[in-house]
Amino acid sequence: MSVEAEKDEYKDKYKVLRLETDAGVPWNTITAQLAATGENTLSVLAEWDEGGRSYMDITVSESGYPQVADALSKWDTVKQALVSDPVLRLHLDGKIEVVPKTPIRSREDLSCAYTPGVARISTAIHRNPSLAYSFTIKRNTVAIVTDGSAVLGLGDIGPLAAMPVMEGKAMLFKQLAGVDAFPICLNTRDPDEIVETVKRISPAFGGINLEDISSPRCFEIERRLTEELDIPVFHDDQHGTAVVLLAGLMNAVKVVGKTLKDCKIVICGIGAAGVACTKMLLSAGAKQIIGVDRQGAIVREQVYEREIWNWYAQNTNPDLEKRGLANVIKDADIFVGLSGPGALKAEDIRNMRNDPIVFALANPVPEIYPEEATGLVRVMATGRSDYPNQINNVLCFPGLFRGILDCRAISITDKMKLSAAEAIASVVEEHELHEGYIIPSIFNPKVVERVREAVSRAAGES
Amino acid sequence: MSVEAEKDEYKDKYKVLRLETDAGVPWNTITAQLAATGENTLSVLAEWDEGGRSYMDITVSESGYPQVADALSKWDTVKQALVSDPVLRLHLDGKIEVVPKTPIRSREDLSCAYTPGVARISTAIHRNPSLAYSFTIKRNTVAIVTDGSAVLGLGDIGPLAAMPVMEGKAMLFKQLAGVDAFPICLNTRDPDEIVETVKRISPAFGGINLEDISSPRCFEIERRLTEELDIPVFHDDQHGTAVVLLAGLMNAVKVVGKTLKDCKIVICGIGAAGVACTKMLLSAGAKQIIGVDRQGAIVREQVYEREIWNWYAQNTNPDLEKRGLANVIKDADIFVGLSGPGALKAEDIRNMRNDPIVFALANPVPEIYPEEATGLVRVMATGRSDYPNQINNVLCFPGLFRGILDCRAISITDKMKLSAAEAIASVVEEHELHEGYIIPSIFNPKVVERVREAVSRAAGES
Repeated sequence: MSVEAEKDEYKDKYKVLRLETDAGVPWNTITAQLAATGENTLSVLAEWDEGGRSYMDITVSESGYPQVADALSKWDTVKQALVSDPVLRLHLDGKIEVVPKTPIRSREDLSCAYTPGVARISTAIHRNPSLAYSFTIKRNTVAIVTDGSAVLGLGDIGPLAAMPVMEGKAMLFKQLAGVDAFPICLNTRDPDEIVETVKRISPAFGGINLEDISSPRCFEIERRLTEELDIPVFHDDQHGTAVVLLAGLMNAVKVVGKTLKDCKIVICGIGAAGVACTKMLLSAGAKQIIGVDRQGAIVREQVYEREIWNWYAQNTNPDLEKRGLANVIKDADIFVGLSGPGALKAEDIRNMRNDPIVFALANPVPEIYPEEATGLVRVMATGRSDYPNQINNVLCFPGLFRGILDCRAISITDKMKLSAAEAIASVVEEHELHEGYIIPSIFNPKVVERVREAVSRAAGES
Repeated sequence: MSVEAEKDEYKDKYKVLRLETDAGVPWNTITAQLAATGENTLSVLAEWDEGGRSYMDITVSESGYPQVADALSKWDTVKQALVSDPVLRLHLDGKIEVVPKTPIRSREDLSCAYTPGVARISTAIHRNPSLAYSFTIKRNTVAIVTDGSAVLGLGDIGPLAAMPVMEGKAMLFKQLAGVDAFPICLNTRDPDEIVETVKRISPAFGGINLEDISSPRCFEIERRLTEELDIPVFHDDQHGTAVVLLAGLMNAVKVVGKTLKDCKIVICGIGAAGVACTKMLLSAGAKQIIGVDRQGAIVREQVYEREIWNWYAQNTNPDLEKRGLANVIKDADIFVGLSGPGALKAEDIRNMRNDPIVFALANPVPEIYPEEATGLVRVMATGRSDYPNQINNVLCFPGLFRGILDCRAISITDKMKLSAAEAIASVVEEHELHEGYIIPSIFNPKVVERVREAVSRAAGES
């Protein structure tokens, strides 16, 4: 048994051990015995199989490490190695912090920032509440609100486990658009309670970004908050996805010389994002959208349990196409996947009209991999960063909130979302546009600036 | 009429005008007419009288300023001057911000901090929730919770107007103790709703600092949150005041050669702070405490409407002293004022025992000014920064929370508060101790460090 030591970089708090063994060794027994070696705050980070062997990453405290390493050395079949893990290192103690904009160095500073000076500012706001937008963080601060019920591809992992995602989002808000965002992770699932809670904490915030709240509760929560609050509310999983999808499609149809209004568009997966994308496409002029879910195409002749599907049936599928994806995909110009791995077959693409456009957005595994579609599609996009044309919400939310905060919009209209999509699409110049470049990089500084401008302009017009 | 222009430094957003006139000019009429000159977001910051003249500070937007200045020039009796206001300047756009600890510069950074890397951290926390203390901001983050019902000396000004105070507190948390704190300003007064709301948002936080919530609701809210949450809860107006008061008294009795347990202590003003200070003094060994409020001394023979006063009557005033302050102050060793301006007369001090100790903590105007007590008191303290011996909560909360966060305490015990008081008192060395120096400066770096150590040690023992 060998120990490959590596420089520990976790601020001397933790060591990460990668254990390796023949498949079949009972990890549970091993970790129980390791945990019993003393105070070591042992935690399992990940388990996986690879090449006929099993792996497990565990963290142990610096102080408990010698006992753990010693105990491990007693299993001949288990190899241990210290590893350096950049993801873990980045997350230690969290990814964001709350800092003063100016230091308090003296009694004089203190008497400006705190008592007695602050009393004058508080009194002024008490007299005229709109001054809060000038003299507090409200104007530039967004609450990222989640209940952790639909996080990334992970599903219902709860508010605590959702924290790292919300912190990551707060980083992007600040870095890309200068917006201060703070995670509000709620340990309730009840829509009434979520609405109430967000209303009660709203004074400090200039906007609400709803995040990773599962369908159908997300619809009611967003609707009620929009009605009952005087600050803008935006459910990113719905509208952020819809805005960026539309931006991508606007450029994709340009590449193939079609227009959205003449395209037959099949949307696969009619959850919250599917509904929002459909509404966005309708307001952008699309006429022929067919939504398809596990039970087949959504069609007006049927009555659905999900309220939103009845709305969907009334507003899409003009030719009442029926049955599953394999049927409705025939002669489609555009496929939009918001469902799951492998939902789209190469055969389906062959049945599409000329110059097919395929947006396979399931994450991390798309409806079809670009490799499998090569030669069949004309324009292909995914949600992944390792293929061209990544449809990523990060293209929308920083600039959109920058815009609505700057102009103190009280709500987010269709016009503003449409303008945001046009702004994102416009960053790819006509002469740059081709099959492999329909959407800009999230690091392109023009994105936030153009979205901000477009949203402010649209807000001014409405 | 003269206009004294001064360099405008408010980021070109606002100008502050100071108007001056003979007392008796109707400001309301003037501001109404100024507001009508166009879009100028005119706001009144302050009004006051001085030397037989009236003053008013107003803010107007940069763009609306010329019209306002022009309109003002029509009142011969009103002088206008542009002023530079450091308090206002400091507050523009708020005093804190939420920043990433590390920048996201590339796709690689993004894939560590956000998808797909973050999914691994979220999954690990989902399996083992205690990992949230290692890989999110929870461990170092405190919610500063208020409903704005009892803010500073301002009273019930509401959650929005309370924001600048909470932001100031967040600055001090970070600057003095490296604690990340975020304002949660609630627009509800209902104790049930406050308790519910704080519980629902608690996942992101490692501690709760209740602030400026009026009595008696603050007692129930703190008790229930302490019982129902697994993170520590601390109402600063009660316990922060009590800890710092005790620290000051420990050193004050040393200066005069007495001990707390032999002193007769009169506490004037039995609100939330008065009750907490009394409990703290009792647990520090004081035997003879008499609480006095507007209706006189609190005494066991009476039944009170306020529940907490019945507790108070049972646990203090062993000799059943009656009537008002002027009576119970006789032969007292220590006066603690948590009431209002002028409550203590020079005559009262003359009736105290030898070497009187007077803590006149009402803010901003104390129960008696040090000038009026000169020659009568031996040790005098106030809540003000412009006299010696300032009893300031800032001496307690940063180090206390640093300590409880570091050792992951789940509650705050009397032992921890007592240790914090001893730690603060210990910063003034024996040889430095005298009438004018019983309590350290909040900028003394030893304060946070000693409080932190003491609290961690006390937590370890319990």
